[in-house]
Amino acid sequence: MDKYVLKIKCSDQKGLIYKISTVLYENSLNIEKNSEFVDDESEKFFFRARLDGQIDAQKIKSELQAVMPSDASIVLKKKVKKNIVILATKESHCLGDILLKHDSGELNANILCVVSNHDTLRALCERFKVEYHTVLSKDLSRIDHEKRVLEILNNYEIDYLVLAKYMRILSQEFVSAYEQKIINIHHSFLPAFIGANPYKQAYNRGVKIIGATAHFVNNNLDEGPIIAQDVISVNHEQSWKDMQKAGRNVEKVVLSNALDLVFDERIFIHQNKTIIF
Amino acid sequence: MDKYVLKIKCSDQKGLIYKISTVLYENSLNIEKNSEFVDDESEKFFFRARLDGQIDAQKIKSELQAVMPSDASIVLKKKVKKNIVILATKESHCLGDILLKHDSGELNANILCVVSNHDTLRALCERFKVEYHTVLSKDLSRIDHEKRVLEILNNYEIDYLVLAKYMRILSQEFVSAYEQKIINIHHSFLPAFIGANPYKQAYNRGVKIIGATAHFVNNNLDEGPIIAQDVISVNHEQSWKDMQKAGRNVEKVVLSNALDLVFDERIFIHQNKTIIF
Amino acid sequence: MDKYVLKIKCSDQKGLIYKISTVLYENSLNIEKNSEFVDDESEKFFFRARLDGQIDAQKIKSELQAVMPSDASIVLKKKVKKNIVILATKESHCLGDILLKHDSGELNANILCVVSNHDTLRALCERFKVEYHTVLSKDLSRIDHEKRVLEILNNYEIDYLVLAKYMRILSQEFVSAYEQKIINIHHSFLPAFIGANPYKQAYNRGVKIIGATAHFVNNNLDEGPIIAQDVISVNHEQSWKDMQKAGRNVEKVVLSNALDLVFDERIFIHQNKTIIF
Amino acid sequence: MDKYVLKIKCSDQKGLIYKISTVLYENSLNIEKNSEFVDDESEKFFFRARLDGQIDAQKIKSELQAVMPSDASIVLKKKVKKNIVILATKESHCLGDILLKHDSGELNANILCVVSNHDTLRALCERFKVEYHTVLSKDLSRIDHEKRVLEILNNYEIDYLVLAKYMRILSQEFVSAYEQKIINIHHSFLPAFIGANPYKQAYNRGVKIIGATAHFVNNNLDEGPIIAQDVISVNHEQSWKDMQKAGRNVEKVVLSNALDLVFDERIFIHQNKTIIF
Repeated sequence: MDKYVLKIKCSDQKGLIYKISTVLYENSLNIEKNSEFVDDESEKFFFRARLDGQIDAQKIKSELQAVMPSDASIVLKKKVKKNIVILATKESHCLGDILLKHDSGELNANILCVVSNHDTLRALCERFKVEYHTVLSKDLSRIDHEKRVLEILNNYEIDYLVLAKYMRILSQEFVSAYEQKIINIHHSFLPAFIGANPYKQAYNRGVKIIGATAHFVNNNLDEGPIIAQDVISVNHEQSWKDMQKAGRNVEKVVLSNALDLVFDERIFIHQNKTIIF
Repeated sequence: MDKYVLKIKCSDQKGLIYKISTVLYENSLNIEKNSEFVDDESEKFFFRARLDGQIDAQKIKSELQAVMPSDASIVLKKKVKKNIVILATKESHCLGDILLKHDSGELNANILCVVSNHDTLRALCERFKVEYHTVLSKDLSRIDHEKRVLEILNNYEIDYLVLAKYMRILSQEFVSAYEQKIINIHHSFLPAFIGANPYKQAYNRGVKIIGATAHFVNNNLDEGPIIAQDVISVNHEQSWKDMQKAGRNVEKVVLSNALDLVFDERIFIHQNKTIIF
Repeated sequence: MDKYVLKIKCSDQKGLIYKISTVLYENSLNIEKNSEFVDDESEKFFFRARLDGQIDAQKIKSELQAVMPSDASIVLKKKVKKNIVILATKESHCLGDILLKHDSGELNANILCVVSNHDTLRALCERFKVEYHTVLSKDLSRIDHEKRVLEILNNYEIDYLVLAKYMRILSQEFVSAYEQKIINIHHSFLPAFIGANPYKQAYNRGVKIIGATAHFVNNNLDEGPIIAQDVISVNHEQSWKDMQKAGRNVEKVVLSNALDLVFDERIFIHQNKTIIF
Repeated sequence: MDKYVLKIKCSDQKGLIYKISTVLYENSLNIEKNSEFVDDESEKFFFRARLDGQIDAQKIKSELQAVMPSDASIVLKKKVKKNIVILATKESHCLGDILLKHDSGELNANILCVVSNHDTLRALCERFKVEYHTVLSKDLSRIDHEKRVLEILNNYEIDYLVLAKYMRILSQEFVSAYEQKIINIHHSFLPAFIGANPYKQAYNRGVKIIGATAHFVNNNLDEGPIIAQDVISVNHEQSWKDMQKAGRNVEKVVLSNALDLVFDERIFIHQNKTIIF
């Protein structure tokens, strides 16, 4: 039996749950789980349900559209594995963790390929028989480098781009081409330590906790909607390299948890925030 | 405008959300937030909503009863401050934290009185003008002691009994008299270190984390439904008294968080577990 | 028997532990616990020991001074309760927590008095028989207000000033008058959300964790050496007021832990960081 | 320049630090970092230092032995990569994490081989060119199975055996053959949920936190000295399989942290506890 996810976002008004549940009930749909949230500030309503059964998605969508507010965005899709491309640079921990989960069948996604600005991680990808493209950035402008990366990406139907410690800043054009589809892991608890070498920044500031943040990428560096964060304790005995080493475990787990949420379609992006069911 | 909480527990079947939302919609009720959960093992459905407005609770309940499964337990009540009695022994941190929150208006409850088997905390309660009853246990059997405590309790209409480090074990009779109304804080992450002096047990076992657990009390010591838990790190340098001191901060925060959930009626007890919306 | 704390800070060189332990051994001192750290960047050596016994502190210090590098700062003091003044504004949770711990004998300090720019917390302090001074800021310049506060403080011998949610920014002159003696609790995990209303900032940024930071105060707002930090998880359902409420438990515990470390003389301030033994 | 670790355990008495530092100073040794701890209950003294330079270990040890209490155990060894064998069953997350860290040069150990009671993880090990031995347990008594495993292990010089989710209970004989050399990861915060399927036990108990524990193995199941523990929050929506999935990230990180501590020789085992510097 197929499984579907229904996601609705619209202006809030009385009776929305009643209207949605009426349509679903009249179509004899079995709701496995539903969640809703109203953002009081923007007066927006968010709804997600997992549905079971033989579903005429087009019919259900039309019927829902007919009763919901005119600004309603309604998505009803069969749950399938996402198709992803991973961008990485030199560090292996996040990429390796994804490859391992993919290998053991725990990742709800197909890895189409890995693209990197270095050749460093090729051997690792080859171990797992994952296609690897190196696009060296030497002697290339940022735009030219991105162009070559995009040429590779254009060969694939991509649901999500995962930046698994990809250490280059993406241009506005690049980000726009994959709007709300790029997930990054940043090695600090944002908004602290935006930008380069956050562990060094953390060390210099003398913080007692360090962390990692997975977020969607938008046009402002490290400022997109946050999906997941976690932290660990550090102390004065740790150099910034010690912090970096300890932080890697946090980075890979936070990214992994974020990907699970994204691939399971449990997230709404609203303004610069996420609503996670 | 009054605020109400609707809580429903029944056998799961198709269309329950539809049926509930139809009744609420037809009565023009504004649902502020609703949550639902289906326990797949027992096939039970749990629903909670916060409602706003002028409500004829009796009418709504009847209409819901008419459409819900016959085993449905339906509670629809105006949100009011709970009336609580606190039982304590000698340690002041949990009691003091509750008194402070009560004093600053953050506690969603009225403290009717404090009952203790020692006179130690009388001065603290008097500072906050809270009635204090000492029931010494010396020369009394457990049953006789409880009888005298119950005599005091019987003078009050009690929604919840809060055991704020009350270091006596309650008899089955006592617990039955306040079924699902007694909240205890245990100074370990249950089910580890049930019983006496869990910090000493933790020290002896050499654990690297200690914790606290707030739970409803049932007839098995420290085995009732868990509401909230938290932990902190410890190391070999800490004696069991150091752990006890560090643990007190965890205990009072875990108890406080649990009381917020209970007083806000966000909890269902199901078998030996809690479902928390 | 008296207890002493010995703290040494100096340039690093070979044999420092040997030299220190020789002096202590030849004076038949019992070292209960010693800790050392070398900061590789600045090549500074830090040492702390708890000593037991009848100690001629002046003699020991001279002997140590004779063998240590010329830049050595050596402190050897009997462990005594610190004398503190608390500055607060309107929120009671941090102040109340300190008053409770003081009341139960768990605070390693005497509270000389509480000074506030509002009268709000007077009743609370009076419950605990702690002197309370209100210095209203209405119609006063910052400098004039501080002057009146300082006039009060000048009546006391103060080891530490504790800012228990004191919501006014201190001038450079004020801070200089109590250098390395002012401890503040900031309601965010610094350096995120410096300045006003960090919970609102956190809500607007859509973070998934919020926190609190206890730090020494220097001349840059919220940028002094960090003593302790902790965080809790939050989600999209929480308004900034919900976050504020949840955060209060973190604030008071982080401040309390920091005060324990300070009062126990376990901290070195080095540049803009703390070294905590 | 070589790096050494000096570890001393003996009865506590006055002047031990003086005596140790005198020997080290007279041998012109550069102490990079030293740590000490006295266990007040057993009156034992523990000391660890990292030393730098050209060291005549035999000479230093003799000189230390001459001045330390007669029960002193003194270990002074060059820091080298440990040689380890990993035992696993079917789950890949802990093994895979170790293989990845080994592959990227972050593991302070050589993996001699992997031994499993199933063939499931062979492909993964082959990806990383790590020798894999399957010892099926079908039709074999526990003793016979262990005998065959031991026959394989006997071919190697093993510093540590890592049980990376090895789901078989080891006999007393097996454990004795590798005393204080076997590290296990248990999928609960011990001592809660000893034995089989702790996630199911945790689910049934309705706990709000689950965790993992890395510990040395002794003759009592899951009761050896604890090295590292960590937890994550769970809620009523999670089935035991969801908890298991979420817990895997904790398991692998806790095991990894424990191995770092072990391979870096930062641990003393004392009675049933660890002292970690």
